[in-house]
Amino acid sequence: MEVYPYLSQIVSPTDLHRLSDTELGEVAREVRQAILDNVSQTGGHFSSNLGTVELTVALYATHSLPPDKVVWDTGHQAYPHKLLTGRLPRFPTLRMHGGLSGFLKREEHELDSFGAGHAGTAISASFGMAKARDMAGTNERVVAITGDAAICSGMSWEALNDAGADGTALTVVLNDNRMSIAPNVGALSRYFNKLRSRPDLQGMARYAKGIVERIPGPAPRLAAGMRHGLTHYFAPENTGTIFEEMGFEYIGPIDGHDLPLLLEIFRNVRELPGPVFIHALTVKGKGYEVAENDACKWHGVTPFDLDANAMPKKQGGSPAYTKVFGDALVELAKEDDKIVAITAAMPDGTGLVRFSEELPERYHDAGIAEQHAVTYAAGLAVGGYKPFCTIYSTFLQRGFDQVLHDVAIQKLPVRFCMDRGGLVGADGPTHHGTFDVSFLSFIPSMVLLAPRDGTEMREMLQWMADYDRAPTAIRYPRGAAPDNLPERRTPVELGRAEDLGIVGSGKPKAAIVAYGSMVSPAWDAARLLAESGIAVRVINARFAKPVDTETMVRAAEECGAIITVEENAKQGGFGQMVRDVLSDAGLGATPQRILALPDRFIEHGEQDQLLSDLGLDAVGIAKAVTELTSPRQRL
Amino acid sequence: MEVYPYLSQIVSPTDLHRLSDTELGEVAREVRQAILDNVSQTGGHFSSNLGTVELTVALYATHSLPPDKVVWDTGHQAYPHKLLTGRLPRFPTLRMHGGLSGFLKREEHELDSFGAGHAGTAISASFGMAKARDMAGTNERVVAITGDAAICSGMSWEALNDAGADGTALTVVLNDNRMSIAPNVGALSRYFNKLRSRPDLQGMARYAKGIVERIPGPAPRLAAGMRHGLTHYFAPENTGTIFEEMGFEYIGPIDGHDLPLLLEIFRNVRELPGPVFIHALTVKGKGYEVAENDACKWHGVTPFDLDANAMPKKQGGSPAYTKVFGDALVELAKEDDKIVAITAAMPDGTGLVRFSEELPERYHDAGIAEQHAVTYAAGLAVGGYKPFCTIYSTFLQRGFDQVLHDVAIQKLPVRFCMDRGGLVGADGPTHHGTFDVSFLSFIPSMVLLAPRDGTEMREMLQWMADYDRAPTAIRYPRGAAPDNLPERRTPVELGRAEDLGIVGSGKPKAAIVAYGSMVSPAWDAARLLAESGIAVRVINARFAKPVDTETMVRAAEECGAIITVEENAKQGGFGQMVRDVLSDAGLGATPQRILALPDRFIEHGEQDQLLSDLGLDAVGIAKAVTELTSPRQRL
Repeated sequence: MEVYPYLSQIVSPTDLHRLSDTELGEVAREVRQAILDNVSQTGGHFSSNLGTVELTVALYATHSLPPDKVVWDTGHQAYPHKLLTGRLPRFPTLRMHGGLSGFLKREEHELDSFGAGHAGTAISASFGMAKARDMAGTNERVVAITGDAAICSGMSWEALNDAGADGTALTVVLNDNRMSIAPNVGALSRYFNKLRSRPDLQGMARYAKGIVERIPGPAPRLAAGMRHGLTHYFAPENTGTIFEEMGFEYIGPIDGHDLPLLLEIFRNVRELPGPVFIHALTVKGKGYEVAENDACKWHGVTPFDLDANAMPKKQGGSPAYTKVFGDALVELAKEDDKIVAITAAMPDGTGLVRFSEELPERYHDAGIAEQHAVTYAAGLAVGGYKPFCTIYSTFLQRGFDQVLHDVAIQKLPVRFCMDRGGLVGADGPTHHGTFDVSFLSFIPSMVLLAPRDGTEMREMLQWMADYDRAPTAIRYPRGAAPDNLPERRTPVELGRAEDLGIVGSGKPKAAIVAYGSMVSPAWDAARLLAESGIAVRVINARFAKPVDTETMVRAAEECGAIITVEENAKQGGFGQMVRDVLSDAGLGATPQRILALPDRFIEHGEQDQLLSDLGLDAVGIAKAVTELTSPRQRL
Repeated sequence: MEVYPYLSQIVSPTDLHRLSDTELGEVAREVRQAILDNVSQTGGHFSSNLGTVELTVALYATHSLPPDKVVWDTGHQAYPHKLLTGRLPRFPTLRMHGGLSGFLKREEHELDSFGAGHAGTAISASFGMAKARDMAGTNERVVAITGDAAICSGMSWEALNDAGADGTALTVVLNDNRMSIAPNVGALSRYFNKLRSRPDLQGMARYAKGIVERIPGPAPRLAAGMRHGLTHYFAPENTGTIFEEMGFEYIGPIDGHDLPLLLEIFRNVRELPGPVFIHALTVKGKGYEVAENDACKWHGVTPFDLDANAMPKKQGGSPAYTKVFGDALVELAKEDDKIVAITAAMPDGTGLVRFSEELPERYHDAGIAEQHAVTYAAGLAVGGYKPFCTIYSTFLQRGFDQVLHDVAIQKLPVRFCMDRGGLVGADGPTHHGTFDVSFLSFIPSMVLLAPRDGTEMREMLQWMADYDRAPTAIRYPRGAAPDNLPERRTPVELGRAEDLGIVGSGKPKAAIVAYGSMVSPAWDAARLLAESGIAVRVINARFAKPVDTETMVRAAEECGAIITVEENAKQGGFGQMVRDVLSDAGLGATPQRILALPDRFIEHGEQDQLLSDLGLDAVGIAKAVTELTSPRQRL
């Protein structure tokens, strides 16, 4: 650790208190270097963390953690926080199974005061902590660090509205880097640009610093000084900023990489009695030039060569579902001018970049605003269009009420495309898309489907484009679309499963019914079983809702045992629905095994490893079939 | 209909076009009278509808519906809309089974362009319609009418942020009556007051009217005129309003009951090319004095005597669950200073008024902001408090992601109290709380429970206060807490059902396992069955999660048939969980019947009638038991 002579001595943020400003500058330099050294090895969120180095050092050097609390919104910019809270030695295990989480996690460290992964939660949580403090009569400071995209999410505004009116002491730091993962959109984003464009920012900031230094007296007077001094100097001409209207002191914009200025401001702001909003301008990728110049690409990285300034190109193999989806939707939309594509701030992640380039007039980025994105799509459907509302499974949870209340009650044919349906790997429990079958299947009129491979994905998208009687939702996992199944195809029909036939010889001992991502391992399991002399019928479920009752009943009657496999929680999932139709058909006695995710949150780790641990790979499925069909199980 | 000589001639809004301003004043008078005459007979939303009479008349007289589209947020202020769209003759059927819905409904009328019930959806939906219009190349106007409370909900801000940046033609009317159902809270509410308090409002409005009248030329010039004229005259000194910062033209505040002014402004605004925000001040209950003076009480009314100016007092009977809850929480909180109560803008509806009065320092109204309310509660839990987050079942759908991502992943002991769990009656499908078991049961660590009566409710709340290992959620229905069960009590224990014993003589032929609101009718069903000579065991499930496996298995083995009853969707509900534990225990062959809500949205109507129609009353349950236990069913 001698490469980090200062940082390696920082076990707790309070260790920063005894360092001079110059030494803190050294700490910041080492934090940045540690991120470069480690993330280039492990992969992970990259450019956002390079942007928060000075912010974090300044904040932690001027606050007392604990008892002060800092809540990091989303949490993908908190590597400096991890490094300043004693986790440098474990940093090389970042995002590995059993290693450090890529996000904050209360179980991981006492100073991870609030975990996150979805955007926009920090102000609500920190305001709750501040009110708990007030009731308890203690006086620790609570600080929320949010981003210029996260703050556009509805719940951030709900929280600003509430906290601003309440008036209790609370610091909100806006880490404004003009980006979410992609360039930020929306009116607020433009507004931030307007604030940024005030002339002579740097000089004004220095001037303000001078003011802060000269404010005498205790906290209340300082607050008054801030109100009548700083704010007026910092805010654009003639306006109270939006944040002042919401009840916050507004300080900014300030250079979020100017460590002496940040130290000065945070030192003073810590004592302010009311809510304060600090607008800090940062550069995503700061200090690593190629990342500064292409922050999108460097938002999340795979391991790369630090000196070569380049990430390795992905090697061959099957294309990712994301790409299959994006290409297919462009092709469909070129044939059907009613098709429109919607993303919630994730054009890259959802594969819509090509759509945005080739059909910009029918593409819309709604920002980190899943609620709005869903109901906006509903409005488009009312207007006669065919919206493909493309949101990761985990983020569609944010739009749940809108799916139910605005789309499904009115049977509007919005097409939901849920990428990352299933375990996502290193991002862990906040990002696993393992609940979508459960939270959509009880919604009347909703149709749920999932493809077995890329070809079926294209066919299903075509089917969804044509189906206009009700909402539909397709899920597909992170990673490559498999292509190892028999090439025989049957057309996609509402609520019809696809019988892939018997694998092995003789009468099938069981039917394996797999949904979406589990068809491929189920097929492999069948081949393993065939090698052991056990024949099974393999069924590609295609639709989780409506369940193909006829095929399920026939399979149960023929095979005498049925195994369902899905990459979703067991409760409320596909297997239970199959159990239900079998029971209702008087086949409740048929041995059935539901292979699905257990009733606990799944930690981060390699996708394949996690699936294997949970018995959701070919070996696990084969094992379950063997157990179910072994004589002692057939009571 | 001769009491409404003008209104009775209005079959379509376009009929208003041929009337003079004076005649439109008569129409407005009659609309108000029709609301008074009818709602005093039928009950329904009252004061909010009296507030939108002039707004609606002016808007519809100046716009062309169709093709123009108006989206009413929430929809409880749209009776004038119903009356101006040909529904006067059917108005006496309001909120009755088979009659007019109390909200907007696309199936009910082509001019109900977007249904709602939950707040904050109108701007998203109307922006979607506006973009569909742009793509189609037509030029109808799209108007969203929202309220000063609904606009504080996060999704309204997400939509403003998006639509303001986009810049397409869209009118947003803010119907500012300073109220949601209760007085509005939050920083924006104060901001609206600041806008309202500008001196000489009325004079300024008249002046602005003069300006509008003098603006010559076509739409673009008018827009420029508005930008440089109206906005600057109307906005408070020195500021671009928040709405201007969000990209909207801001016009206001204007008197929302001044029909000539409204006509003038709407006439001109219809042609504006970009997004415009009209801030109209209205009075809830306008024109009916007692309602003007107590808008809370008169928000929703039961039938009342129009001349006596008073609603009848509720007569005797068991207290409503809402009151049992509110009183119990106050008593608990007096004993336990960690208990805090949270509402999302519904202190009355959730029974928290007494708490707010007696323990104001531990009471918090977060506004119509369920997402924020949930994560705020999570923050309080981090701070060592015991938050009781009290939100109607249907509205907790808005906080679904927060329950999962902010509360459950971190196992924070937030206590969710879901009033209106089950069918709510006249408010219909947007308000039925029939999905909470389904959308919470698959969330790891979550505990779900429901009381059989008021006494058990109090015991369960005490149990929840003491349980601090994970989140809990209690549901209870609209209406009176029943009290007709045997008084024997057993203590509440995690995951333990309560065996209410065998009703009737001889060996029980079935076990009826009922959850929450269904225990009472299940008990009555058992008594009916006993009269027919069929003995059954009745089990009060208490916990939907975790299911009491031991009791379920024992009951299935003893009785040989099991019926579950719940006031929740079947899919993802309690019955499926029971089926699951029985199947996993090798009892899949036991005849089981799940009585639950079918896979469709349930219309509005009397609660008892709806439950009876769905077989969820004593008679229906008894019938199901008889069917299940009759010999031909026992294959």
